[in-house]
Amino acid sequence: MNDIFLKACRKEKVPYTPVWIMRQAGRYMKEYREIREKVSFISLCKTPDLAAEVTITPVKRLGVDAAILFSDILILAEAMGLDITFTEKDGPFLKNPVRDKSSVDALSIPDPEDKVPFVMETIKILRNNLEGGIPLIGFSGAPFTLASYIVEGGTSRNFTIIKMMMYQNPSLYHTLLDKITKSITLYVSSQIKAGAQAIQLFDTWAGILAPDDYREFALPYTKTIIEEVKGKGVPIILYINGGGGLLELMKEAGPDVISLDWRIDMDNAISRLGKDIALQGNLDPCALFLPPDKIGERVKDILDKAKEAGGHIFNLGHGILPETPVENVIAMVEAVHKFSSKVQHDRRPAP
Amino acid sequence: MNDIFLKACRKEKVPYTPVWIMRQAGRYMKEYREIREKVSFISLCKTPDLAAEVTITPVKRLGVDAAILFSDILILAEAMGLDITFTEKDGPFLKNPVRDKSSVDALSIPDPEDKVPFVMETIKILRNNLEGGIPLIGFSGAPFTLASYIVEGGTSRNFTIIKMMMYQNPSLYHTLLDKITKSITLYVSSQIKAGAQAIQLFDTWAGILAPDDYREFALPYTKTIIEEVKGKGVPIILYINGGGGLLELMKEAGPDVISLDWRIDMDNAISRLGKDIALQGNLDPCALFLPPDKIGERVKDILDKAKEAGGHIFNLGHGILPETPVENVIAMVEAVHKFSSKVQHDRRPAP
Repeated sequence: MNDIFLKACRKEKVPYTPVWIMRQAGRYMKEYREIREKVSFISLCKTPDLAAEVTITPVKRLGVDAAILFSDILILAEAMGLDITFTEKDGPFLKNPVRDKSSVDALSIPDPEDKVPFVMETIKILRNNLEGGIPLIGFSGAPFTLASYIVEGGTSRNFTIIKMMMYQNPSLYHTLLDKITKSITLYVSSQIKAGAQAIQLFDTWAGILAPDDYREFALPYTKTIIEEVKGKGVPIILYINGGGGLLELMKEAGPDVISLDWRIDMDNAISRLGKDIALQGNLDPCALFLPPDKIGERVKDILDKAKEAGGHIFNLGHGILPETPVENVIAMVEAVHKFSSKVQHDRRPAP
Repeated sequence: MNDIFLKACRKEKVPYTPVWIMRQAGRYMKEYREIREKVSFISLCKTPDLAAEVTITPVKRLGVDAAILFSDILILAEAMGLDITFTEKDGPFLKNPVRDKSSVDALSIPDPEDKVPFVMETIKILRNNLEGGIPLIGFSGAPFTLASYIVEGGTSRNFTIIKMMMYQNPSLYHTLLDKITKSITLYVSSQIKAGAQAIQLFDTWAGILAPDDYREFALPYTKTIIEEVKGKGVPIILYINGGGGLLELMKEAGPDVISLDWRIDMDNAISRLGKDIALQGNLDPCALFLPPDKIGERVKDILDKAKEAGGHIFNLGHGILPETPVENVIAMVEAVHKFSSKVQHDRRPAP
């Protein structure tokens, strides 16, 4: 088995830098678009054979070092009792956003085996099919991001509604976040039981919080989940989009790996976070519009800087964009493997 | 005259911390909404008496220490020859975005006195009306942000079109940015000649650039403008939304003041930027949804941290939101003045 990704998460010595891509099963791939012509996004998430197929296609096509479960972070919100519509263009939206005590009280803490069995089934199929191959990453939205969707009712520009709840009704906010945190803990625990070998928590929206607000309204919940899950022997990756101002606080949450977006220099991240944590990232998804040789230069630059990190998993700084040419993605993966064989040779021993 | 704002920009000793608010003339104010019921946004920008009126109303109502010209950063894009529609809900959009050589060539470098005389007229009216009062800030979009609007055709989610131009046709990009930079230099120079006593450059979208891209594709142009304008004796403020990863590069551009968004801790900004530059900011606009006593606590926290800065002008980290209660804004301004009288007493002498 190729366990280089898992080794890098644990800051162990690796022969080259592992790479995978956020949203690697997505619209930029012809194979994915063909399946999506036949089934809706939500049916795809809920049909284990198909979800497993779209998970595996990019693995074969790109030569990445990890697979990530094909699913959506709002699958859990639906399991908590919410009515969600998944649209292609404007993202998901909720018919009845959660904004008062009665709707918070109405949310359930779902038993994943009972409410989202298709997720566990997909994981089991994947583990069988990936046997002898690469590790499988499970995932969930982090508490603040899931709460943002649930309260705002979809994606948001200024996140005024959830911030109003935080500021004007903190006890309601904390009750909601407690429920979400318990639900996520059960959810990722079930994913691990089903076979997920690493977990990524996506706190996609937490970058809109001022650091002191992140500390009060997001960090404690993420930390609770990581503490609960950490004993289960799989590495936890924490991602925040726009988290450049929150790096030190992300580390306080206790993940094995911090996943950086592209808006922070790898050098700067290492100097702030030290060598006792692995880093993931952090090429701008738009850099894949560059010609392949230029992509190689950028890959090399990140790899060179990341030599100083405790461990490094190459990735984009955010999900891959639908307009991305597949051949450029392949060029990126090849460049990571090629240039890091050299880099690894130079890697300084961990302190 | 109350020149405390200008003194703080120059890192001189001040009796209390000056405060103004980005978009302080805006929809959160009843007086503004009443005028907007009668005239469109663009007519308001182009009618000096009315533009001056909405500029002054918040000054009187809030007790801030600086006024900022009421206008829009796309006024300059229009003067360069573009057809822009200003919509209330979705922001401005361009009928014919600039994406090829012929449309870049077709752009003019406008003489501001000739093409936007109403801006200079508004400034003159304001200086007359503010005489003996507070300073007037002029402004422009920074080159990258103006280019983003012009190329994307409006606000954007991922800025893929301008990034594609940067990456795939850098010479076209640089030709465009040269023209924009020359236009902005003339524009702010005219504003200063008409009476603007400080200039803020809004690089609202530059926060979506990776630091190395900011260095290559945005910084040189902003720096050129600052160098050109600096001899004119007015302080220059540089603002980037989401600029937490770019602070050191912002300083390289050479402004007198760096305006921080709310997603970076004031402490962290000071430790990275040092004491030889003034800082502006950086309360989360959403924090104005807190009850007034809690707003006071947050103001005090920022003031306490900013004691270590070379100079400090209080502001929000982004434009004030339309939903903001005016009484909370007044509470914020009062809190800045009240708590900083104490803070200033403690301020350490500049090195």
